[in-house]
Amino acid sequence: MVVTEAPTTPPRPDIPEFEQAIANLTVPLGREAILSCTVDRIGKYKVGWLKASDQTVLTMHNRVVTHNSRVAVSHDNQRTWRLHIRQIKETDRGCYMCQINTSVMRSQVGCIDVHGEYASSRARPTRRL
Amino acid sequence: MVVTEAPTTPPRPDIPEFEQAIANLTVPLGREAILSCTVDRIGKYKVGWLKASDQTVLTMHNRVVTHNSRVAVSHDNQRTWRLHIRQIKETDRGCYMCQINTSVMRSQVGCIDVHGEYASSRARPTRRL
Repeated sequence: MVVTEAPTTPPRPDIPEFEQAIANLTVPLGREAILSCTVDRIGKYKVGWLKASDQTVLTMHNRVVTHNSRVAVSHDNQRTWRLHIRQIKETDRGCYMCQINTSVMRSQVGCIDVHGEYASSRARPTRRL
Repeated sequence: MVVTEAPTTPPRPDIPEFEQAIANLTVPLGREAILSCTVDRIGKYKVGWLKASDQTVLTMHNRVVTHNSRVAVSHDNQRTWRLHIRQIKETDRGCYMCQINTSVMRSQVGCIDVHGEYASSRARPTRRL
């Protein structure tokens, strides 16, 4: 019996690819969130992070673009790109895009959930009986 | 008679503002499209252009981010920021965001429509009778 397999497209050595999905996070209010985006064969290309909901460009390559002082970026030998958001707030909840600046852009998304009720527990303090 | 006017918020001298809306364009296939974004008091901040539909970062300050070689950026004394897209294709149709990297991001959008039927007229040539 002859088994004909569907042709597979070999990876192009000059085009970067994501090595794995971004792990979603659940972070307590006030802590630091770190999303990691791992890219194979980055070569001449650059990685940027955006907030997906409003398209805010947060970082590009090793620079922080936004003037939000809680945001930082780091990388391990240009392979794993980490978006750091310190002192997480409710407004940071949402999804973030890791984007590669290929001509046809490549991207993947990871999401941050925030737990804790810092704001509401301050607004309505527990009554001591 | 005393007329009490609603209080107006004076512009903050350290925060940039858009001076006018971005004019939408209709461009023939193959021509160059130029969208203009005029910013008052840019100061220490930077202007970027993105394709709104897929969040592709095209330019940041005076650098082209995408590896799409048809894209360029220019500015008049950091006041009017122009996104240039040469040799317009059908796939360039859509809206583009001009973004300022303030802590709470500011943006406005301009759209490009593309006319002409370059592709379909090649696919279905007129039959000569």
